[in-house]
Amino acid sequence: MTYRAPVKDMLFCMQELAGLEQVAKIPGFEDAGIETAQAVLEESAKLNEEVVAPLNVEGDRQPSYWKDGKVFTTAGFKEAFKQFGEGGWQGLQHPTDFGGQGLPKTIAAACIEMLNSANLSFALCPLLTDGAIEALLTAGSDEQKATYLPKMISGEWTGTMNLTEPQAGSDLALVRTRAEPQPDGTYKIFGTKIFITYGEHDMADNIVHLVLARVAGAPEGVKGISLFVVPKFLVNADGSLGARNDAHCVSIEHKLGIKASPTAVLQFGDHGGAIGTLVGQENRGLEYMFIMMNAARYAVGIQGIGVAERAYQKAVEYARERIQSRPVDGSQPGSAAIIHHPDVKRMLMTMRAYTEGCRALAIVSGAAYDAAHNHPDAEVRKQNQAFYEFMVPLVKGYSTEMSLEVTSLGVQVHGGMGFIEETGAAQYYRDAKILTIYEGTTAIQANDLVGRKTARDGGTTAKAIAKQIEVTEAALAKRESADARAMAKRLKAAREAFVQVVDFIAANTKSNPNAAFAGSVPYLMLAGNVMAGWQMARALLVAEEQLADGKGDNAFLKAKVTTARFYADHLLSKAPATRDAIVEGADSVTALALDAF
Amino acid sequence: MTYRAPVKDMLFCMQELAGLEQVAKIPGFEDAGIETAQAVLEESAKLNEEVVAPLNVEGDRQPSYWKDGKVFTTAGFKEAFKQFGEGGWQGLQHPTDFGGQGLPKTIAAACIEMLNSANLSFALCPLLTDGAIEALLTAGSDEQKATYLPKMISGEWTGTMNLTEPQAGSDLALVRTRAEPQPDGTYKIFGTKIFITYGEHDMADNIVHLVLARVAGAPEGVKGISLFVVPKFLVNADGSLGARNDAHCVSIEHKLGIKASPTAVLQFGDHGGAIGTLVGQENRGLEYMFIMMNAARYAVGIQGIGVAERAYQKAVEYARERIQSRPVDGSQPGSAAIIHHPDVKRMLMTMRAYTEGCRALAIVSGAAYDAAHNHPDAEVRKQNQAFYEFMVPLVKGYSTEMSLEVTSLGVQVHGGMGFIEETGAAQYYRDAKILTIYEGTTAIQANDLVGRKTARDGGTTAKAIAKQIEVTEAALAKRESADARAMAKRLKAAREAFVQVVDFIAANTKSNPNAAFAGSVPYLMLAGNVMAGWQMARALLVAEEQLADGKGDNAFLKAKVTTARFYADHLLSKAPATRDAIVEGADSVTALALDAF
Repeated sequence: MTYRAPVKDMLFCMQELAGLEQVAKIPGFEDAGIETAQAVLEESAKLNEEVVAPLNVEGDRQPSYWKDGKVFTTAGFKEAFKQFGEGGWQGLQHPTDFGGQGLPKTIAAACIEMLNSANLSFALCPLLTDGAIEALLTAGSDEQKATYLPKMISGEWTGTMNLTEPQAGSDLALVRTRAEPQPDGTYKIFGTKIFITYGEHDMADNIVHLVLARVAGAPEGVKGISLFVVPKFLVNADGSLGARNDAHCVSIEHKLGIKASPTAVLQFGDHGGAIGTLVGQENRGLEYMFIMMNAARYAVGIQGIGVAERAYQKAVEYARERIQSRPVDGSQPGSAAIIHHPDVKRMLMTMRAYTEGCRALAIVSGAAYDAAHNHPDAEVRKQNQAFYEFMVPLVKGYSTEMSLEVTSLGVQVHGGMGFIEETGAAQYYRDAKILTIYEGTTAIQANDLVGRKTARDGGTTAKAIAKQIEVTEAALAKRESADARAMAKRLKAAREAFVQVVDFIAANTKSNPNAAFAGSVPYLMLAGNVMAGWQMARALLVAEEQLADGKGDNAFLKAKVTTARFYADHLLSKAPATRDAIVEGADSVTALALDAF
Repeated sequence: MTYRAPVKDMLFCMQELAGLEQVAKIPGFEDAGIETAQAVLEESAKLNEEVVAPLNVEGDRQPSYWKDGKVFTTAGFKEAFKQFGEGGWQGLQHPTDFGGQGLPKTIAAACIEMLNSANLSFALCPLLTDGAIEALLTAGSDEQKATYLPKMISGEWTGTMNLTEPQAGSDLALVRTRAEPQPDGTYKIFGTKIFITYGEHDMADNIVHLVLARVAGAPEGVKGISLFVVPKFLVNADGSLGARNDAHCVSIEHKLGIKASPTAVLQFGDHGGAIGTLVGQENRGLEYMFIMMNAARYAVGIQGIGVAERAYQKAVEYARERIQSRPVDGSQPGSAAIIHHPDVKRMLMTMRAYTEGCRALAIVSGAAYDAAHNHPDAEVRKQNQAFYEFMVPLVKGYSTEMSLEVTSLGVQVHGGMGFIEETGAAQYYRDAKILTIYEGTTAIQANDLVGRKTARDGGTTAKAIAKQIEVTEAALAKRESADARAMAKRLKAAREAFVQVVDFIAANTKSNPNAAFAGSVPYLMLAGNVMAGWQMARALLVAEEQLADGKGDNAFLKAKVTTARFYADHLLSKAPATRDAIVEGADSVTALALDAF
């Protein structure tokens, strides 16, 4: 077994931190209690451990390849995707109306983490399909929904997001792809899209491209972008597949990692025009695309957690097996397994603490999403929406940045063997590097955090969350243990640093934008650190209480306390320095003359 | 041009920080003044920019390969290495007695950085040869010196270090390779060595393997290891090449990076025994090997600086060209080159500050090496030796760890293009990852720092260096500029944190080794940060004084002040948090039960 799903920790996060019991009281989620969660997670673990994970190395060694406009995926991927679809996993969090399971994100997040731990490249196909489903659910016409959603939710068809063009990456104002209205109400699409994940492949009968393009006469910039559905094969009125559409894959990229996942260059309209239908209204494409992107950003954050967990497991396994050097405390006369060495423990604890902290944050944010979308009380929906929206750039940005550090440590634990591709640790290091880039780089997430999520409301949401953290601090203060006291001290310092930075950002974003944005990514890292650390603090409280009451799994709870303590001592403790760099170091970021670089 | 050697900064480091004028007063280095330095650096820049750097990408795409026991290097490598040897570059820092140039390390370090910036894989062959030369110079017999050194120094033959075996990586006590004494005074060597850099290749007529092995009856562990010279081809009395020795390359590794550099598995003695001669005395092999390793560790630190500089230059070039998004300060109505965006500047400044700080530290340490080995005054030699030895694990550990962050940022600046191998940024990210592993992982460097360099003298050397830092703080305090004041504040806090950790390490290494070694790598990172930051502080002082006096290159000096200020605000400012993690967080590193991982 190369991967074991951390079901116990996932259930703990759902039940003790995300309030699954409350989620299960929301209309529509009545069946989503802990028993359901456990059953779903165990099934998901089975599929991912046994079917998807074993394909991961093979996908790296025999990546997908392009030939004559077709893309052939790694042997085994097609069959595994069929099993994935038939098992209902693509529809996990989608409405039952279209064949989905209708489960809350609180539960789905854990299953998605497993899929990504098992195989980051494979997981990207469902990830993009999820985004396309969300966009069609929100903005698609009844006909579009009926035509596409059941097949996408069943895994028979897949979806893509077509944003990027050679000159338009983060900056969608530069999109040039054209859409020409036709007399029958359809549009003809012309243009080149790059970096299209699973833009072409052999795992599904049809591929539903969602494409950003400009209709002639539309306003300049992002206000003139519309969204279109452009299927690879046109769909007949009876739902059967019709003619091949004029959307062709002309090449795929040779990449650092996630090699099994084809990254396509798509040409639309080179042979007369690709036929598309408008989603929603003209010139509102960006808004709809953000629906997909927000779903995808959260999911990419989960990817970071997934690959971090896998790298951690691999490193632990190696550290238990590799015999090298005597223990520094003389506890053993001869050479010992390297897991006995303090620095190896430090690396493994760092990997573990980051992963658990980010997992807790993601699942708690997933519960906020569920309440924001489904709770009967409008005020509850609003509060949860604000909470979720604040967390999305953190789940995306912080969980993926930490995955770079974690996968790098994973290689490091392996020593020289880590640098040999055969060992497999290096793959996670290569694969993870895309996570801080796609669906918006960390800087783009940080712009979102600074602009929309902090400055726009003057820091109100951020400070409301800080007040919740103070409640946790108060609970910690009531406990007597050294672990709780250490956590309380670090959490307080980190929360105060966070609030000071929120004030700095709120004060400067308009008046001195260079200063505010010079600290944008450090602010994101600080905020992510505080929020993940806060969840670890909450976990510590629950674990200590359960241990005192003699409830739960003793070994698991003790490990949770220790991991939380490590998080406090080694990760949360960095927060004040980040505040200093942001608040006192803004000028030196932008002071160098441009020609002096 | 894909690389431009930073000659100006290198000369600044030599002249203003490392005291090249003083070095040139040491007997034997009289010709090594600033004019010589400049002339040598300019020649070195030419070769590396024009000949070596252009082979870097090709080496990654068409790596060396193994066929029937032979290794074929990338097209162009052999010719470039011939030019390198003929230009006298292999002999740069080696004695004129054997055909070397006899230049101080103060100057050689800069040339070696250039070579590594140009091509990390290529540079490894001279790097290992340098180590083998050092070992033979120190411990070889006159006959061994006469036989091997002139050819190695001329670049006709190359050298290797054969330490690692499958079961013996960091832990040389586990070495099993055997050496059997023969009646003629030679030894027959039997065993398997792995991870042998340039263990086989086609760039030189002969390869001089230095091999660790055990003579029958030798003591257990590291005290029973001897060092042998085992040439690929035996050498006749007249210096001509004789029979092929029984040392054969059975395979090379498929690696994450430095792919052009062949990493060999060598079999010694499968066909009757490889003939070797003993270097120095039996059972003192480890001691001699440490000579090679210390030279090599310093050089690997330089590799970190080299690859960081190259990654920085590439990122700057891309950031100037890539047009994307409006400036946040509204200074331009349309999309701008991304170098205008504050977060891109933050990334570039981080890359730049790390690289300049580590370069300064390496060159200053090089000057200490020169004085330690050649100064006429024994007391001066002793002080410099202590300084140099303290710095070696920092130059190695900190410069290579920072190179991981810098090359990762290099990819990040490129956005999606960074993940495409064609762009070239990803190669630096892959290549750099070995640097924190070979010649002793960062943890091994940290053990050296904790054990031999700190605990052994109770922190005396460390604190003597801290006193020197206080002198710099006092000089900063006399200046009025905001930059000097900010630097003074951060340097003081960082130096105090350093001293507190030194006390913690000195107090705990014996009595509570788990606590001391739990903080070993964080201590190394803190110490490296403080020492590199100290050099940036010294650079700031010199630059401000020269600016006030109207001397020197105005733009260069202003950039130096800004970069030093950035170092203070964003990197040095992390030091107190590292102290907290070490001093207050030791227990949580080792608290988790082994079976809970």
